[in-house]
Amino acid sequence: MYGRKDQARGAEGTFLWLMEEIGELAAEVRGDNHAALQAEFADVLAWLATLANVMDVDLNQALLDKYGVGCPGCLKSPCACSDSEKP
Amino acid sequence: MYGRKDQARGAEGTFLWLMEEIGELAAEVRGDNHAALQAEFADVLAWLATLANVMDVDLNQALLDKYGVGCPGCLKSPCACSDSEKP
Repeated sequence: MYGRKDQARGAEGTFLWLMEEIGELAAEVRGDNHAALQAEFADVLAWLATLANVMDVDLNQALLDKYGVGCPGCLKSPCACSDSEKP
Repeated sequence: MYGRKDQARGAEGTFLWLMEEIGELAAEVRGDNHAALQAEFADVLAWLATLANVMDVDLNQALLDKYGVGCPGCLKSPCACSDSEKP
């Protein structure tokens, strides 16, 4: 949606925008406005996708490669790892 | 996949995990290992989705509500806002 501007901004500049949205998400996590919280989640995801695009990463494929089989630890979904294990 | 552990951790604890993954993503943005970079994008997205779940936010719906019509500024995709405007 913003391809030309995104490429001009570059990875470092795009990361800063992602961080700004992470800060706004933090504020809404502390708040009690569910609609505003939902909108901030959308903004963080949009900037994460933008950063992935700028860096030639397919976000959907990344998720499938790492979590497509279930938990990377026990390979099950839901996760059956011991409670003492990460995460 | 991790529902029971996620609820026990709560929003604040889950946000801290998201921040840890953001830090790891930052390290890979600076690096040159594309596979590791892709894996960190997956981890950040996974923790973002986890935080959304913990806070009763539908991440897909959030994205549709905010960006489903295109750019929220000009309502077009690709965005046709002036270069001087955010973002």
